[in-house]
Amino acid sequence: MRVALFPGSFDPFHNGHLEVVERATRVFDKVFVAALQNPQKGEPLFTSSERQAMISESLAHLKSVEVVSLSALVVDLAERLGATAIVKGLRAVSDFENEMQMAQMNEQLSGIATLFVPCHSAHSFLSSRLLREVARLGGDVSALVPAPVAQRLKEKFG
Amino acid sequence: MRVALFPGSFDPFHNGHLEVVERATRVFDKVFVAALQNPQKGEPLFTSSERQAMISESLAHLKSVEVVSLSALVVDLAERLGATAIVKGLRAVSDFENEMQMAQMNEQLSGIATLFVPCHSAHSFLSSRLLREVARLGGDVSALVPAPVAQRLKEKFG
Amino acid sequence: MRVALFPGSFDPFHNGHLEVVERATRVFDKVFVAALQNPQKGEPLFTSSERQAMISESLAHLKSVEVVSLSALVVDLAERLGATAIVKGLRAVSDFENEMQMAQMNEQLSGIATLFVPCHSAHSFLSSRLLREVARLGGDVSALVPAPVAQRLKEKFG
Amino acid sequence: MRVALFPGSFDPFHNGHLEVVERATRVFDKVFVAALQNPQKGEPLFTSSERQAMISESLAHLKSVEVVSLSALVVDLAERLGATAIVKGLRAVSDFENEMQMAQMNEQLSGIATLFVPCHSAHSFLSSRLLREVARLGGDVSALVPAPVAQRLKEKFG
Amino acid sequence: MRVALFPGSFDPFHNGHLEVVERATRVFDKVFVAALQNPQKGEPLFTSSERQAMISESLAHLKSVEVVSLSALVVDLAERLGATAIVKGLRAVSDFENEMQMAQMNEQLSGIATLFVPCHSAHSFLSSRLLREVARLGGDVSALVPAPVAQRLKEKFG
Amino acid sequence: MRVALFPGSFDPFHNGHLEVVERATRVFDKVFVAALQNPQKGEPLFTSSERQAMISESLAHLKSVEVVSLSALVVDLAERLGATAIVKGLRAVSDFENEMQMAQMNEQLSGIATLFVPCHSAHSFLSSRLLREVARLGGDVSALVPAPVAQRLKEKFG
Repeated sequence: MRVALFPGSFDPFHNGHLEVVERATRVFDKVFVAALQNPQKGEPLFTSSERQAMISESLAHLKSVEVVSLSALVVDLAERLGATAIVKGLRAVSDFENEMQMAQMNEQLSGIATLFVPCHSAHSFLSSRLLREVARLGGDVSALVPAPVAQRLKEKFG
Repeated sequence: MRVALFPGSFDPFHNGHLEVVERATRVFDKVFVAALQNPQKGEPLFTSSERQAMISESLAHLKSVEVVSLSALVVDLAERLGATAIVKGLRAVSDFENEMQMAQMNEQLSGIATLFVPCHSAHSFLSSRLLREVARLGGDVSALVPAPVAQRLKEKFG
Repeated sequence: MRVALFPGSFDPFHNGHLEVVERATRVFDKVFVAALQNPQKGEPLFTSSERQAMISESLAHLKSVEVVSLSALVVDLAERLGATAIVKGLRAVSDFENEMQMAQMNEQLSGIATLFVPCHSAHSFLSSRLLREVARLGGDVSALVPAPVAQRLKEKFG
Repeated sequence: MRVALFPGSFDPFHNGHLEVVERATRVFDKVFVAALQNPQKGEPLFTSSERQAMISESLAHLKSVEVVSLSALVVDLAERLGATAIVKGLRAVSDFENEMQMAQMNEQLSGIATLFVPCHSAHSFLSSRLLREVARLGGDVSALVPAPVAQRLKEKFG
Repeated sequence: MRVALFPGSFDPFHNGHLEVVERATRVFDKVFVAALQNPQKGEPLFTSSERQAMISESLAHLKSVEVVSLSALVVDLAERLGATAIVKGLRAVSDFENEMQMAQMNEQLSGIATLFVPCHSAHSFLSSRLLREVARLGGDVSALVPAPVAQRLKEKFG
Repeated sequence: MRVALFPGSFDPFHNGHLEVVERATRVFDKVFVAALQNPQKGEPLFTSSERQAMISESLAHLKSVEVVSLSALVVDLAERLGATAIVKGLRAVSDFENEMQMAQMNEQLSGIATLFVPCHSAHSFLSSRLLREVARLGGDVSALVPAPVAQRLKEKFG
């Protein structure tokens, strides 16, 4: 069985992430989406369990997907889940270099390969950071995130 | 009347920003320069009103320019000012991707288009962050910023 | 009156070009689209007059647009047409550097400024070169080009 | 069965390509390597059958790999071979944008997804074009290509 | 005598840095490696003196190298040490733009030129930030840093 | 003695190249500028001896510079001239990747290191290809090239 692990902060999960998961399910038998428990860049907007809940609801239509929590090295989780590969989305050039760096590090640490899934739809310029900024200032981002995320952003920022 | 809105942190305003405003005034009847009140990246070096004052003095020779404060979504301010377009400067590849992301977000939120004004003079590698670092350590950056900014940097760091 | 000149090879004109023209008409009173008579990169797929005809048909819904031929320096045509600015589309990083180079050259030669119009829709990865390759091999690109272009590609490659 | 198609000119096949194929075999049950019969960029250094022979010999240790010829649209070959996905190597930023463009085109044409396999070893800066130039001028590139390719380059350029 | 100054945070020093120093010693008679006392990006993992000690031990085999501390403007230190040039490593595109910016600033401030030393080995995707993250989570990075650094990381994170 | 080799097509030599040579002479005792005899990209605008003559005249003020012809591998010429390093100019991101590729290849072939000299003046967006195009169409590029080059361009396209 081909198993993929898709790790990220997902704070929040958006339509670009959704596109990556949907493409990954075409290639892998099982896709684990792992939400980083404590993102390094300060306090997250949503708690780890809020993020996991939102992702699960957003991916309910994809039967081969499971959402888990990530609190250790990605490669350790990958090994524990029996992952064949790590998958990451690629949007822009700046993604590309960070992701190449992490892919090499992860292969160095454990031998696991990373595959990149291009994100090239109309939402390819989406980022969680920008969505948070806009939502905080009252902008309507409901066209850019799955409905369960839009709902929670509305609850949070009114 | 063609109205442009040029938003930014301008902490501080430098010769690259000046170049963008000067090019914009050739195309637009009116250019609003909007200084972000509370930049997201920590405490600014200069307060919002200090920044506005410095920009106004630096642009006193351009009659079609007005300096305002920005405390909400850029697209909301753009609508309130009747802006035809948002203008942003483009220096380097890293700018390009961030700015494309914001341009798409702003068009998504309100339908307003963003135009990019290239900054390709000898000062194209200028950034406010680097200027702050150098000035803090006592470096002389007066050739890289308008005179009113050079004056205030000198007052601040002696 | 604010006049823009949008020069290019347009071999063929595609939906990304269309998106740029539509954005430019929101900012300028008049937009000239200038099809390069003899693109430097070998024999074009369509003759200059075929390309002009296709562009005109594709832009028939935009009243402030006029299609012309370009056989000299862009800056000379810009001066002759009384253009306020040159506009170019920006899709990707590789575009960015070429276009910055040309923008600086054109400003050096004549003082005219270039404005960049971002192309960030789902079709942002389109290019004329790739469209030609695919159409030549029998691929159906009719979703990626205006109808008048799709028609002529079909006539050419059957 | 998960089947990948890895298309390219491979003129000649080098250690960076080899690295991509080896990673792909860890994820896919079967990997087809398809050598473009007539690369668009002028006369190839090696004929299509020479290239296929060299690739086959270089990959003889990988049982799940098969080398084929590519003379039509990549998506048509992918469909004929029952490919689950197209795989491409990614080395540098310039690759990234071309490959994103083709990935989007291929998904537009047929719905097939492309996965990118990072090439981040010491040979990540390899390219077939540079290898041809150096070999032509008598440089020894045998550390950068599989032995069957090194052998044929030596026969060709003495 | 040709003297180079190689400034950086080196928190921690890794094999990519080592590669740059080794190349610099082939061109310069003397190479000063200057560890920034207080890196701007928050509390460093290792104190300034710890970092200096680790670098000195890692470079003990290179007789023309000396490790110093950096607490002022790079150009002021360069002048004090009689440096002919500043040298910096270049790995990736994102490095490139930051470094070009600093190189121009430094030449503006003092007339000193910067030379870039490419880092293109298998370790070209290394970064101190990523190494810190991985070591913190218990990953083994001893293949990616000199032995004296590996030792101290082990002491710190067990 | 520290000797640098600066290879290129120089068709024609322009102010960006001049800036690189001037910076290189501050670091090296001797700088050889090597004009590629037969550039790969089609017929050059100027013959090899025309290009050598123009470069020599443009660099007459720099006593430590010598202009030579390049008809073999760069690394072979470097060895014959006793070069300590190859130097190349770096302007933009697209340069960066090509040059990193060649630097690695050259180090692989002969062990010689490449140093990059940033080109960050107002002329950083110059390229020989663009200069040829503009001069061909009658544009005045005399502000962008040394006088001896401007003179010959005028004679050629006058």
